[in-house]
Amino acid sequence: MELFEAIHRRHSYRGPMAKDPVPHGHLEKIVQAGICAPSGKNAQTTEFIIIDDPQLIEQLNNLHPANKAMQQATAMIACIIDQRPEKIYEGYDFQVEDCAAAAENMLLAITALGYASVWIDGWLRIENRAETISQWLNLPDKKKIQILLPVGRPLELWPQKERFPFKQRVHYNTYSQRKGVDK
Amino acid sequence: MELFEAIHRRHSYRGPMAKDPVPHGHLEKIVQAGICAPSGKNAQTTEFIIIDDPQLIEQLNNLHPANKAMQQATAMIACIIDQRPEKIYEGYDFQVEDCAAAAENMLLAITALGYASVWIDGWLRIENRAETISQWLNLPDKKKIQILLPVGRPLELWPQKERFPFKQRVHYNTYSQRKGVDK
Repeated sequence: MELFEAIHRRHSYRGPMAKDPVPHGHLEKIVQAGICAPSGKNAQTTEFIIIDDPQLIEQLNNLHPANKAMQQATAMIACIIDQRPEKIYEGYDFQVEDCAAAAENMLLAITALGYASVWIDGWLRIENRAETISQWLNLPDKKKIQILLPVGRPLELWPQKERFPFKQRVHYNTYSQRKGVDK
Repeated sequence: MELFEAIHRRHSYRGPMAKDPVPHGHLEKIVQAGICAPSGKNAQTTEFIIIDDPQLIEQLNNLHPANKAMQQATAMIACIIDQRPEKIYEGYDFQVEDCAAAAENMLLAITALGYASVWIDGWLRIENRAETISQWLNLPDKKKIQILLPVGRPLELWPQKERFPFKQRVHYNTYSQRKGVDK
């Protein structure tokens, strides 16, 4: 799929998914796209867990009625970073940014391969969900799950959500305060 | 350009750039790709400043001998977020992640259109560079520049940096501790 088509077609999908498994080769191709994302100081901090074991998937499907995609996906990709990232540049680390860039590459790959997903993030951080999943995935204490991507073939056609008007988010050369537009 | 080709060709480019201006339509197409990136709760928090005013560009080119791309780019895109982001979900905000996803979409768009760039981030956070640039861009106090992307036509051919082996970053179903591989 052409890049700009993938960028425009990618959307957060929370609808029903087909029950058939996602071929292993596709999951690896999606993760390879994540690996190709940039990272601060090229530290390549994000690790990936490809989840398609039926028992693990069933546990994840049943964790919470978040959305149909999470309940019905037959595969998921967990993005793993450090609990306490090492400061690798002048007192800063970039693991959250690294992981987000990898997730976006993977969402585009998922779109191009005919699947759908949704960026699960805040949902992990409440009701001990990240901790519960970390146990299931056998994560060491120093690691945490930052983002979870359910992967499956969508049974409904969803569009990308409408965006605010271009001029509301884009400025030219200097930041322009706009009456009635700025929050 | 096909999505996976763009993902594999994108790279951090710090080499010399052509002096010719980047057409305005291309800069808007790149920013439109950023706008299409997902954001937590679809809050669309990232704003963009397209910079191609020759005087502003000269100031930015001369700010610091960081790399040739920053010194020679004829256009830049600044990604703007809030200084103190509103907690929009259970005490969390996602502005850093939103901005990173938008930057990755834009880097892919830059690649597909035949330009090159490098994700400028940590460099902004020292020696008051972000504050200096914020003044030039007339940012209100509540906003900050999070990422800066120089944009230009590369004069050298650089590859994407080599990645750690696939098996070092990818696990299947559970996190596998690997002797001699885990940090």
